Order: sequence, then structure tokens, then C-alpha cells
Amino acid sequence: MSATGGTAPSAPVPASLTPSDLEEIALARAAWSRLVEPGDEVAGALVAGVGAAAALRWLAAMTSEASSIVHGVGRLCAHLGVDDAVARRRIERAVARWQPRLEGLDPRREVSVLTRLGGRLIIPEGEEWPRRFADLGPSAPMCLWVRGDAPVGPTLERAVALVGARACTDYGERVAGEFSMGLGDRGFTTVSGGAYGIDAAVHRGSLAGDGPTVAFLAGGIDRLYPAGNADLLRAVADGGGLVLSEVPPGSVPSRVRFLKRNRLIAAAGAATVVVEAAWRSGSLATAALALDLLRPVGAVPGPVTSMASAGCHRLLREGRAVCVTDLAEVCELASPLGEDGSGAQDREQAREASDHRPHDGLDAVTALVYEALPVRRGAGLEAIGRAAGVSPAEAMAGVGRLELAGLAARDGIGWKRTIS
Amino acid sequence: MSATGGTAPSAPVPASLTPSDLEEIALARAAWSRLVEPGDEVAGALVAGVGAAAALRWLAAMTSEASSIVHGVGRLCAHLGVDDAVARRRIERAVARWQPRLEGLDPRREVSVLTRLGGRLIIPEGEEWPRRFADLGPSAPMCLWVRGDAPVGPTLERAVALVGARACTDYGERVAGEFSMGLGDRGFTTVSGGAYGIDAAVHRGSLAGDGPTVAFLAGGIDRLYPAGNADLLRAVADGGGLVLSEVPPGSVPSRVRFLKRNRLIAAAGAATVVVEAAWRSGSLATAALALDLLRPVGAVPGPVTSMASAGCHRLLREGRAVCVTDLAEVCELASPLGEDGSGAQDREQAREASDHRPHDGLDAVTALVYEALPVRRGAGLEAIGRAAGVSPAEAMAGVGRLELAGLAARDGIGWKRTIS
Repeated sequence: MSATGGTAPSAPVPASLTPSDLEEIALARAAWSRLVEPGDEVAGALVAGVGAAAALRWLAAMTSEASSIVHGVGRLCAHLGVDDAVARRRIERAVARWQPRLEGLDPRREVSVLTRLGGRLIIPEGEEWPRRFADLGPSAPMCLWVRGDAPVGPTLERAVALVGARACTDYGERVAGEFSMGLGDRGFTTVSGGAYGIDAAVHRGSLAGDGPTVAFLAGGIDRLYPAGNADLLRAVADGGGLVLSEVPPGSVPSRVRFLKRNRLIAAAGAATVVVEAAWRSGSLATAALALDLLRPVGAVPGPVTSMASAGCHRLLREGRAVCVTDLAEVCELASPLGEDGSGAQDREQAREASDHRPHDGLDAVTALVYEALPVRRGAGLEAIGRAAGVSPAEAMAGVGRLELAGLAARDGIGWKRTIS
Repeated sequence: MSATGGTAPSAPVPASLTPSDLEEIALARAAWSRLVEPGDEVAGALVAGVGAAAALRWLAAMTSEASSIVHGVGRLCAHLGVDDAVARRRIERAVARWQPRLEGLDPRREVSVLTRLGGRLIIPEGEEWPRRFADLGPSAPMCLWVRGDAPVGPTLERAVALVGARACTDYGERVAGEFSMGLGDRGFTTVSGGAYGIDAAVHRGSLAGDGPTVAFLAGGIDRLYPAGNADLLRAVADGGGLVLSEVPPGSVPSRVRFLKRNRLIAAAGAATVVVEAAWRSGSLATAALALDLLRPVGAVPGPVTSMASAGCHRLLREGRAVCVTDLAEVCELASPLGEDGSGAQDREQAREASDHRPHDGLDAVTALVYEALPVRRGAGLEAIGRAAGVSPAEAMAGVGRLELAGLAARDGIGWKRTIS
């Protein structure tokens, strides 16, 4: 790319942007997404502070000589009013790690390649940017490389992240599929990582239920990884869902990028649900990131004999996740406080009601009397009272209440139950 | 029984008791256990206040005439310094419910019948009384009718209550059996209710593991209920365990007695673990009673598709139970604070260790460098740094640290991983 010389960084981006401003910012952010590894907080703070394009010009103006870097960082810090040797040293180190990647940088070409692939680039300054990413602060992605026609922000407005083990069981796959399919009906988008196992079951469940689903990849969106899920991920992008990445096309999905990618999944969902996870698992890392973002986390329990549920049980045991066992509980977790939107309470009431027994709601003494009522041949009040351990007066009152409730009936000179 | 006339109640039981004092108290408590339904707090407070024998004499001295009761209760209240119309009225109502059962009361005969059955009676004033029952306050049992030779108090010193559904699954039965068998090895007694399903699996597991197990019955210990578990309960009593009840021989196990019996199970264990329970279940009642007694409660998760685990998941979801998935976690729950006695921590460390990966413990930069190291043909420091997104200096330091850790090796003029 061409540097415009050693200018001082400009002021932050103004509130109202022209299309050409936006294009310049987008290209600069695309460049930054190539220069830095995901979640580079120094880059995030710098771009937020002086603007992506100015920050890029400033970086390109320095040579890799130590004296040039010290000078450039000194000017930046003076401009920003930073008077802290530790911060200055941190920026110097960051410049040293960004500079090697300046060579051959050509974001315009990358964006045009992406466009030919049917993709596009979105940036925080644009309209599509998902609002929850604001919570990521300086570790927010520079931009998102997008495959799929759906508008990103609105698609992620009501979203649940569902994550889990690659090495899942049939049980976990089934639960993930059922939750995702149902979430579409309830107006929720599912978010996952496009991996084998639970991730794939989540995307498939949403596709089957005609609900939108979003896959965040650790590598570039031009290389649908893992290869065995390429058809599925294409179906996601073509079926009203989205395939997203913060790293530019051509980037390989390294282990560190997988870990950093997890913060995007955690941030994109209003809640994160772990369906199956081993005792130690990337899904637990995603859950931890969601908790750091103050997002609710749910864990699906499973048999204690299943190693694939050990991580979920660990989350429950450590009090870091809420136990979720059905679709309504997932919806409740992901709904704003006060808005249930899921029928979870109705369902609990229905459960209680379907389970109602004749002696429910009786006071303690009447319950004792009910218990003591014979089923076949009636007994006298005195015998009933003695059997119940209540006084004769209480026995009489109790039988009276039970008769009113239709639970006791006269039988000759005695009383017996009408329902046994 | 013979009343000794309208004496004023005597003072509470003195600290040092002769064998004949103890016998008198035991007979009086046996009588009270016949007169009242389990958990009668008025009777409990009365017996605690004036002593079982004196309270019984006082009760027997009144006729069922209202005036006689009012007079008797008035004298009692004067003696105790109670000047509260509500309390007086409450005692009058209690007397009216106790009196019908005075007729034909003969505790001496009942105790001798019990002794012929090979049983015995224990009371709070005796040495065998389990210390945790003190937490029950006025709802503590009057006495315990006991089958089995083991001393009750010491047997319940280290005890875990394991409860669950009658309608359990093979999974629940297996987990209950494994926990119980293992608890014996760790020096824990199991406590349950002698019912079908989980209860039976608990008692069987302890018997198989040669650990003591205790069954609290809702009816008399002469009628081993349910009939299908009679052989099992006999094996419990004959095999170093105990079959206990607070209601005298001959008493039928009514629904109310089952509910009241649950408090004894909850009180006897240092912790209560629910293995399987429906959404609405007696086991949840036992868990609630344990929580009331400030005992820790554990719940064993299961498949969300299993209705037999719905109650356990409910406890977890409501934050009322800790998730327990193996023996060590059960032991930890039941062990006094600070004493693990179970190896739960060792086990977690072992789990972590067995799961150790070469890149664990690397700092962030070195981890990036490790990721960027080629596996087959070595690469130069500059290329490694660019791939990792770190500065050349950081790449050099990272490769150096990795070489020291045995994770990187020189390969011609470049570097590669030694472990892939």
C-alpha cells in the first residue's frame, strides 16, 4: 500500500461519514485485519483513538529502525497526551510486530477478491455492525469479512450462541439440533463455530427449521474449514445465514485464532449455551468469555457416565452456568430480563397442573384426615380422628371440608373417600 | 396406661440419669410416639420442656371434657410461665388430638414385642442418639424404633443421604449403586428410605460394598414396607446396617408419614444427594428439608430427555443443589469444610495433568510463535514472526524459549517444531 508520509495521526472519525470516507475506513480496517492477530488490543485502542486510516498512515510512515519507531511512537503519544513509559513501550513493541506484515499489503485487491466471491466487508462505522460487539472494547474485530446476504446486525439482534464438542455423542447432536430448530421458530438466530460435532448440528438444526444461523470461522471465509463442513457452510451462507470471519481471506485457522474467534461467538449471542463439552474444552473457553462479557451461560446436563458432558457438569458445579434442559429454558436465558418470550413460566405452571393430585392444597389437618379416610367401608369420626392423630372436632371439620371438596362421602353411618 | 393423678409437671430431665430413670423416659417416649403423629412440634416442645414422663402423666390426668382440658392446660402454662392465649389455645387443640389415642396405650408391651423381634428403642437422652437430630428442634422424633445391632449414633456419624425416584431408570440405579458401594470404602454410611427404585439401589450398593446403610421407614419396623423390599431390609438390619422408624410397631405408612419421614433422612445425612427425581417428587421435598437444615444438597444430572432426571435438573437450575457426577464429588459434599477426605482435588489435578498439551503454560507471544513454527521444513525467524504476527525480536525470543522447552529445533538455517 502507499503511505502518505509521516503525518501526525488525525482526530477520531467524525459522526457523519460520506461514502468515500466509509470506503477509506473500510480499506484501512481491512488492512489492519491483515496486520494484526485477532484481538490485538493495542491496535484496537489505536484505531479507536485516531481512526483506522490515520493509524495506518502513521504506521506506514515509520521504518523498522528502532530510532524511527521510538520517534514515531513518541509523536503519537504526544498527540494523544499519553505520558506513560509503559504504554509507550507497549506501543513500540506492537509496531515491531505489525511492521513485518506491511510489505505487500493491498486491501483494495483483497476486498475486490472477496466481492468476486460474493462476499463483503463490514466495519463498526457502518450500519450492519452487530451492536453487541461494542462490549468487546479494544479487542473488537477490525472488521468482519462476510459471506451471506442477510444484514449482519439485524440477524444477530436476537441470537443465541450454541457451542460444544467436536467429539460429541448422538445425544448431544440431537439436543443441539432440536434446540436450534426450535430457536428459529421463536425468532432466534443461532451462532456457532462451523466445526464438526455440536457446531454442525446447530447450523443444520437452524437450516432444517428455517431459522437464520451464523458461523464464525477462525480462518478466512474463502477457505471453508473444516473441509468436511464446506457444503454445510455454503448452505448456511446461501440459506439466509452468514459465514463470518475477522481475519482476511487466505488466512489459515491457527489454534490461537480459534481461541480468539471464540470471543466473537460469545459476544454475538445474547447468551451462550454449551451443549456437550469435555472436561477441558474450547467450549468452556467460550463460556468463560461470555461470562467475562456478562452474558448468561447455560449448560446442558447429560449422563454422568458420558465424558462428553463432563465440561457441562463442571460449569454447573462451579456455578458458572445455568442448567438448561429444553428450548423454553434456552429462550429464557437469551431473553432480556423481564421479557420471557418463551413460555417458560407457562410451561412450569402446566407441568405443575398436569401433576395435580386430589389432596393438593389441603391444609395439614385435613390432609391427615383425608389420609385416614377408609377407601372401602366408611368409618366413624372418632375412629378417623384417632387414625389421623387429630381431635374429634378436627376430624369432623376435616371430613366436612373434604365432603365439600368432593373427596369424602357418607357411607352408612360413617365416611369414606370418594377418590382413592 | 395408669395415670398418676393430676400432678403439676415436673422439672426437665436432670443431667445424670439412673438406668431406671432412662427406662421410665424410654417408656414415656414410646408412649408419645404412639400418641402423636411424626413431627408434632407442640408435643416436642412439651416433652423437651417438662420431660416425657411428666408430660404423659399430665396428659393422662385430664378427661376429654373441655373444662378439664382448659384447666389442665392452664396449670401447665402457669407452671411454665406461659402467658399467651394463642399458645394456650394451641396446646388445648393438641391435647384434644392426643387424648383419643390414650386409650389402651401400653408402651411396656410394645417395647417387649419389639425386643422379641430383636429390636430396641433409643431416645435422645441415651448414648446412641444421632447428634444431627438435634437440628430438628421440637420436630425431632420422640424416639427411634431400631432393627439392627449397629450403634445408631456412631453409624450415622459419617453419613450421606441418597434419595431418588421409585420410578427410576437403569442409569439412575447404576449411579446410585456405584456411589453407595464406593461410599462404604470411603467410610461413609448411606441413608435412604427403603423404597423401590433408587432407595433400594442405595441399600443394595452399600451391602455389596460392605458399607453400613440405614433405612428410615414411614411405618413400623415390624412391617417392612414395601413388601417387595422386605428381604432387602432384613439384609440391611442383619448386615451391619439399621432399619429405623419414629412410629411404633404396627403403624401403617401413610402419605403424611412418608413426608415427615423424609426429614429424618435429611437430618441423618451430613449431605443429601438426589440421584433421580421427577419434576415433582418426594425426593425434592427431602432436598428442601435438607436445605432447611443447612445441609448441602447434591443432584446427579442425567439426559435432558429423561423425565427421571427432571427433578435433579430443577434443583440445579434453581441453584438449590450442587452438580455431583462422581464419588469424589459426593464425598466432598458430605465432608466437613476444609476436610476433603475424598481426593476430589487430587482427581481434578490428575484430570488436568492427563490432559496436558505441549503448548500449555507458554506465554501468549511464545504460543503464537509455537503455532507459526512449521512442522516439516524449518523457516527463518522473519517468516515465523510474520506468520505469528509478532516482531522479529519476539520471534527470536520465542523460538529460544521453545528450544529450551524442547518444542523447537534448528533445521538447516531455519526452525521447526519438535512435537507436532
